[in-house]
Amino acid sequence: MSHNSFGHLFRVTTWGESHGPAIGCVVDGCPPGLELSESDIQPFLDKRRPGTSRFVTQRNEPDKVTILSGTFEGRTTGAPISLMIRNQDRRSKDYDEIRDRFRPGHADYTYDGKYGIRDYRGGGRSSARETANRVTAGAIARKILGEDLTIRGAVVQIGRHMVDSKNWDWDSVEKNPFWCPDADMAELWADYLDGTRKSGNSVGAIVEVHASGVPLGWGAPVYGKLDSDLSAAMMSINAAKGVEIGAGFAAAAMTGVDNADEMHMTGGNVTFLSNNAGGILGGISNGDNIVVRVAIKPTSSILTPVHTVTAQGENIDISTKGRHDPCVGIRAVPVAEAMMACVLADHKIRHRGQVGT
Amino acid sequence: MSHNSFGHLFRVTTWGESHGPAIGCVVDGCPPGLELSESDIQPFLDKRRPGTSRFVTQRNEPDKVTILSGTFEGRTTGAPISLMIRNQDRRSKDYDEIRDRFRPGHADYTYDGKYGIRDYRGGGRSSARETANRVTAGAIARKILGEDLTIRGAVVQIGRHMVDSKNWDWDSVEKNPFWCPDADMAELWADYLDGTRKSGNSVGAIVEVHASGVPLGWGAPVYGKLDSDLSAAMMSINAAKGVEIGAGFAAAAMTGVDNADEMHMTGGNVTFLSNNAGGILGGISNGDNIVVRVAIKPTSSILTPVHTVTAQGENIDISTKGRHDPCVGIRAVPVAEAMMACVLADHKIRHRGQVGT
Amino acid sequence: MSHNSFGHLFRVTTWGESHGPAIGCVVDGCPPGLELSESDIQPFLDKRRPGTSRFVTQRNEPDKVTILSGTFEGRTTGAPISLMIRNQDRRSKDYDEIRDRFRPGHADYTYDGKYGIRDYRGGGRSSARETANRVTAGAIARKILGEDLTIRGAVVQIGRHMVDSKNWDWDSVEKNPFWCPDADMAELWADYLDGTRKSGNSVGAIVEVHASGVPLGWGAPVYGKLDSDLSAAMMSINAAKGVEIGAGFAAAAMTGVDNADEMHMTGGNVTFLSNNAGGILGGISNGDNIVVRVAIKPTSSILTPVHTVTAQGENIDISTKGRHDPCVGIRAVPVAEAMMACVLADHKIRHRGQVGT
Amino acid sequence: MSHNSFGHLFRVTTWGESHGPAIGCVVDGCPPGLELSESDIQPFLDKRRPGTSRFVTQRNEPDKVTILSGTFEGRTTGAPISLMIRNQDRRSKDYDEIRDRFRPGHADYTYDGKYGIRDYRGGGRSSARETANRVTAGAIARKILGEDLTIRGAVVQIGRHMVDSKNWDWDSVEKNPFWCPDADMAELWADYLDGTRKSGNSVGAIVEVHASGVPLGWGAPVYGKLDSDLSAAMMSINAAKGVEIGAGFAAAAMTGVDNADEMHMTGGNVTFLSNNAGGILGGISNGDNIVVRVAIKPTSSILTPVHTVTAQGENIDISTKGRHDPCVGIRAVPVAEAMMACVLADHKIRHRGQVGT
Repeated sequence: MSHNSFGHLFRVTTWGESHGPAIGCVVDGCPPGLELSESDIQPFLDKRRPGTSRFVTQRNEPDKVTILSGTFEGRTTGAPISLMIRNQDRRSKDYDEIRDRFRPGHADYTYDGKYGIRDYRGGGRSSARETANRVTAGAIARKILGEDLTIRGAVVQIGRHMVDSKNWDWDSVEKNPFWCPDADMAELWADYLDGTRKSGNSVGAIVEVHASGVPLGWGAPVYGKLDSDLSAAMMSINAAKGVEIGAGFAAAAMTGVDNADEMHMTGGNVTFLSNNAGGILGGISNGDNIVVRVAIKPTSSILTPVHTVTAQGENIDISTKGRHDPCVGIRAVPVAEAMMACVLADHKIRHRGQVGT
Repeated sequence: MSHNSFGHLFRVTTWGESHGPAIGCVVDGCPPGLELSESDIQPFLDKRRPGTSRFVTQRNEPDKVTILSGTFEGRTTGAPISLMIRNQDRRSKDYDEIRDRFRPGHADYTYDGKYGIRDYRGGGRSSARETANRVTAGAIARKILGEDLTIRGAVVQIGRHMVDSKNWDWDSVEKNPFWCPDADMAELWADYLDGTRKSGNSVGAIVEVHASGVPLGWGAPVYGKLDSDLSAAMMSINAAKGVEIGAGFAAAAMTGVDNADEMHMTGGNVTFLSNNAGGILGGISNGDNIVVRVAIKPTSSILTPVHTVTAQGENIDISTKGRHDPCVGIRAVPVAEAMMACVLADHKIRHRGQVGT
Repeated sequence: MSHNSFGHLFRVTTWGESHGPAIGCVVDGCPPGLELSESDIQPFLDKRRPGTSRFVTQRNEPDKVTILSGTFEGRTTGAPISLMIRNQDRRSKDYDEIRDRFRPGHADYTYDGKYGIRDYRGGGRSSARETANRVTAGAIARKILGEDLTIRGAVVQIGRHMVDSKNWDWDSVEKNPFWCPDADMAELWADYLDGTRKSGNSVGAIVEVHASGVPLGWGAPVYGKLDSDLSAAMMSINAAKGVEIGAGFAAAAMTGVDNADEMHMTGGNVTFLSNNAGGILGGISNGDNIVVRVAIKPTSSILTPVHTVTAQGENIDISTKGRHDPCVGIRAVPVAEAMMACVLADHKIRHRGQVGT
Repeated sequence: MSHNSFGHLFRVTTWGESHGPAIGCVVDGCPPGLELSESDIQPFLDKRRPGTSRFVTQRNEPDKVTILSGTFEGRTTGAPISLMIRNQDRRSKDYDEIRDRFRPGHADYTYDGKYGIRDYRGGGRSSARETANRVTAGAIARKILGEDLTIRGAVVQIGRHMVDSKNWDWDSVEKNPFWCPDADMAELWADYLDGTRKSGNSVGAIVEVHASGVPLGWGAPVYGKLDSDLSAAMMSINAAKGVEIGAGFAAAAMTGVDNADEMHMTGGNVTFLSNNAGGILGGISNGDNIVVRVAIKPTSSILTPVHTVTAQGENIDISTKGRHDPCVGIRAVPVAEAMMACVLADHKIRHRGQVGT
């Protein structure tokens, strides 16, 4: 058991605080013989990197990853892979004034209550900076999954503004700073977020991740369900407050007839006429696309003052300066993709262990 | 690692198929010295029992639990507690005709694809019958949590019909066959479900569970987050397709100002002016009520014929007879309560281990 | 984590006390499609069964195993396999007089100290009766390992009387009540143990287990070493006080030149000219026989009075009546074989998971 | 599950190869609020450091540890502690000639067989260099155990030369380069090892570790036994071939009467008149000293040529140059102490979790 690890056979352990010297992770259980170098990982980190547009935090971090172990002559050896990212742009003094007052909606209060001590600089361990490690681990997971399996994510809602599924175009996703699959909506979001940012506020979002090419049979009953593990993985992302698979909460309003993903033989293969299941039945992949959505709450560190209390038990207002994301959901896309990759890689190996293929 | 276990220090392992001789579970890690006998467990099982109203499956199972180990003279000893429930009303012949055809939305197809073999009688391992074990384990978890911590659940939506939060009355929950906290809505649901059942259809639901009296500080960053573990636990319930904490998906549409649960000193204690967080910040309980909602899809075994395929790859229609729940979400209430109890008991013990209190 | 489970992908959880209604185990992670029925398991239990000769406890237990889940039409399904053995011959009154006094060398004192409560009847959870579960799990593990892999054990020392390796004959092992591979020594042991028993004393033993047919490459660095897992498994057997692999403690007295298992190509295969390594190098099997020895201390429950204390803190003498094994090491043979089988099955699956073959 | 982690609540994950840029570990589950800085760890590393006498490898490594996370203002925060040691003196060219030939008794052959790839420089992951991580983790474990619990180790046998227990003096241990508690024997060993080294040979050893001040009640039945976990921990040390607790293998030759550690009330406390149990009964500490012995085989990398095979399947002789320990058992002392500390810290926390004290 470990509070800072996830996965079973493909197992990731992360460490590091926002304003310490470095963050990193150890990836254990990787199959041997896979080609792996920093250049396989860096592009995914660059997607998540702060400072890439005015819609994300302006902290300036190159986020350059180093592989410290587990490869030899450009290939994985089966030994644990240690990855490290140095922290560069640490302005701890920004945090002096929140030292003794708790930010509503932030982990400040609960870390302090649990441990009786906290690293208040930038959230310490609770900072979204930790998610960079997930992205590096996810890049390794993708190597295990191979090129026939595609994982990609998008932001499908910011505030009350939802993409129109009729406009969905995966090519659009890389062409705007929001990973938005609906080009029209991306323009609306730009205006909307400018307003949000200028008013010292923030806003929530929904991220959707698809995995296609997942074979029939990954996952496991009953407490090793693929959707159960995906839920845990997604809900562990900072600021996540909800997870759904396929039709998700909408399924609650449906009848059995409407919700049934009818099956049909097409060219000798089983196909599904709909995908309300989101690719998972009884905790096991059915061969269709796996579809997961994650609700991300608005950044809790906001400039607008809100009521709070101090460590000494006084009522006070707080206004958080720092350099925070107006919509932290945007940078959650590469993170959610990475978590999907890690969970699938783990289940690929688990399945192979038990069933042998 | 185990596919059929959950929890870490309070660890539950379940076994058994719907139509085998029995089902059961082993609960490990229970503190010693707690009073425990079958009469502490049976009432929770009775809440989940089939055949209690016309709105749930008519399978007739007394679901009587036996403690086989782990107690001595009415108290827990610290040794693993083995619990068993005999299966009684097994009409396996009902299932003969689904032997070779896959029910859309059911685990039939994926179990077969994964293992190359399946126990087709009543869903075998994938049957909702497995959840009786969770309820027995949950009863033990409640003993660990003590009487100052209250866990209770309700159905808040069936089909498109949602309870009105203004009418919420916990006392109503026990007074209708739906665990509905809104007496008016319960009447509407009765009519609605009668229609659903008679038309050979089924419908989804949303279950909400509250835990009050949880102290500040349970849970753990980063992959041992309380909400992450709750999500995995809830999503492992049969037919669950979504999980949300506090405001959940609604938080995605909110601004940071609106979502902030402002804090205030009240009589020397920290209080929150709202609970969008659902009692959890940074994966750690903040002392407020923990609120989780779970979306349950409609029962996939329905009388109305739907298109499907056979194990031999032929297109065919299927109509499932058996004795199925028109709204399986109803019986999910005691199960979701139990999962909440198990996760909290585990985190209580984990917290005490690391922090010492 | 669980105190009462072992293995990772092939995972065994046991439960039950010596004088409760039953004991049992849940075996998770078993590959699907293996032929398995009670008759595959019972012969191994019969080897361990009490009452088979005057040299073991006279408790009369048929030890008949029942499979409660995880198989369908005679084959494993991939679901957890629940196994149960009813306790029959429970004379709890034998234990009344040890209720308040601690037997030196027995777990009475430490259970009481740890938990503040203990099931004093027959040792409760600490009874060697628990090991019957290991034997049932081991029978399943052998199915996973297949018929090309042979596991067999023997007693190689009782008291100061060691078998002569020159006389080693595996066929002898089944022909005497001691699993002794040296027919001459078996006769000496019969006399020796008769004397021990009559004098109200007991004696220790060394058990040796061989696994042949283990392929090159099972096990894993650094904390998943095959020898590390075997040590934990063997040391978890009741009364075990030492474990060694290959030359073991004798290797401490050797030089590097003498200890080197020189390698040689023989008919296109790598062979070893000796096996001081006991078949394991760097925690990974080298293709040679795996050889493990376990030291079993004398039964602590003896008729001869020894000094001890009561639960109330008085000095007193104790003489344990009951029906105890004069040399519990004898019945440890099938248990140690089973533990070897379980560890190897786990590592077979773990290897296949990571490396794919 | 992880091949490169050990412990449950106090969990250590190590990474790194002998000739990579660095080695390190992540220690998770440490209680918050403990004073911890590099200066608490470095002294233990210095004990293990190579190059301190002519009896150990002449590789020149300062082995300076850096804490990268998990502390704030000199105290642990409850977050994972990341520790790193840079590798300095890497003469990889020494290893060119063993690139294609397997050293008998070394993990070369099995790593290659398992993974199909290996980092041959200095043993890669299988190098004893990995054990430096254990020493750093052990230093943190000692902080958790507190000052009333003392862990200390000694070499009690080198080759055939055993210390005389009558001469045992803990003060001697720090005064010779062998951690020998018998000053006379230390002189004999110096001569003996000089001869061994000059003849291009190596020799085995036995290390003994004592823990005093362990309270009654740590450990857990049945597969979480303290001795079971200690065995796994000790056997995971490079070159370990045997582990025993208390009387260990000698107990096999004893009678129940002789082996009984009789109990006596002394000044209101339970005391034991002997310690054949090595401080553990039924897997749980009894309050007496915990005594573990580990057999360490001779270094397999020796100058004297031995027969072996090449990766291409040719018979050949090998003579290993490099800078190897003539008796690797000597440097195993601080490592075995550290493993004892880690196992005890884990069980302290596990006990507190379940039992609450």
